[in-house]
Amino acid sequence: MTQVQALVFDVFGTVVDWRGSIAADLGAWGAQRGIACDWAALADDWRARYQPQMQRVRSGAVPWTVLDALHREALEELLPKYGLQHLDEADRCHLNRVWHRLNPWADVREGLRRLKSRYVIGTLSNGNVALLVNMAKHADLPWDVVFSAETFHAYKPLPQTYLGAAHMLDLRPGELMLCAAHNDDLAAARAQGLRTAFMPRPTEYGPSQTKNLGPEQDWDVVASDFVDLAQRLGV
Amino acid sequence: MTQVQALVFDVFGTVVDWRGSIAADLGAWGAQRGIACDWAALADDWRARYQPQMQRVRSGAVPWTVLDALHREALEELLPKYGLQHLDEADRCHLNRVWHRLNPWADVREGLRRLKSRYVIGTLSNGNVALLVNMAKHADLPWDVVFSAETFHAYKPLPQTYLGAAHMLDLRPGELMLCAAHNDDLAAARAQGLRTAFMPRPTEYGPSQTKNLGPEQDWDVVASDFVDLAQRLGV
Repeated sequence: MTQVQALVFDVFGTVVDWRGSIAADLGAWGAQRGIACDWAALADDWRARYQPQMQRVRSGAVPWTVLDALHREALEELLPKYGLQHLDEADRCHLNRVWHRLNPWADVREGLRRLKSRYVIGTLSNGNVALLVNMAKHADLPWDVVFSAETFHAYKPLPQTYLGAAHMLDLRPGELMLCAAHNDDLAAARAQGLRTAFMPRPTEYGPSQTKNLGPEQDWDVVASDFVDLAQRLGV
Repeated sequence: MTQVQALVFDVFGTVVDWRGSIAADLGAWGAQRGIACDWAALADDWRARYQPQMQRVRSGAVPWTVLDALHREALEELLPKYGLQHLDEADRCHLNRVWHRLNPWADVREGLRRLKSRYVIGTLSNGNVALLVNMAKHADLPWDVVFSAETFHAYKPLPQTYLGAAHMLDLRPGELMLCAAHNDDLAAARAQGLRTAFMPRPTEYGPSQTKNLGPEQDWDVVASDFVDLAQRLGV
């Protein structure tokens, strides 16, 4: 473990609470405008389209498309179901950019600041660069480097994302650790030789979440949150 | 100017004093080992190979090559001239990585911290990603995003570097400003529609520098240094 030089983080779910943030952000926005909507349900429906959309890009069925555009496509499909089809272009843009305004879990800022004191810390996210940079400004996330699927024109869990991050940092795969709340992401990283750290986010999908409640492999580190991760890495 | 959302910075010369840093870093290293060398002259010779090397990549005469590798190639050519041909592989690596250990001009940290409070700030440098990330850790440069020629597989002043940074930030070219101490870099950015800020670094090439002592066009902002740039941008 002493060879690890850099930590890259999955973002949606691991760093930020997308479901709670969307419900709070759009809830406040809707309240101001007298728009009633089950925003958490919209968030769930929105997120449910994420993997199928990316799979169409991964398979080559559609050309490279950034996540902002996939989000917008899915939003257009969902607006009628939630009675929001009357929203104009500016409002639709504002809704779509809610993914740029997500908030971190409570332990994230302290954990990242401690980890940054010893390691290069970065994102390794399917979010596009603008989304990740704007989110970092919004949420005060002190990344040293922002790696995105957009950097590699490939969505996780394709190998070129994990290997691309290591290559661009001039590190061997074993000198890079992926930190994530999702066992499948970690499995794909481990298959490419990366080190792995798991921390559960048991309410990412709301109170009745059933997946990723615990580690499914003997990950190099299993932590309760980012502060515990810093502790376990000795910083 | 109020439409500018993000500032990207040329790095070598504009942010960091490569010549002075190399002389100080390798001077101290050489002194410890009893190696006498005119390190500033080596730095000048090294840097003189930079544009011709990149031109071979830009023209397609050689395939895409990151700057660390170009630096190493040039170093190998220069070692005999400076009586350093006896250095082993570890020492050659240490010398080559001096470009990761460059120090900023005195005004840089304060200026960047102020600018970061309002703008997205990033690099737009011909240095490779690992070089820029390691330099930022070494020199405490609080970038929001690291754009490198490596990101685009193209060296400045090719248009895809300036346009690529704007595109990845989801900005129009006019919403992005290049900040540089080099008139030719700014001219190439302006040709693509970027905003431009010039600040002179009159000792970048040592005490007898003759180029880039002042602005050669009516750049959008002309500042004396990064603190003055922050002042002029109202932050």
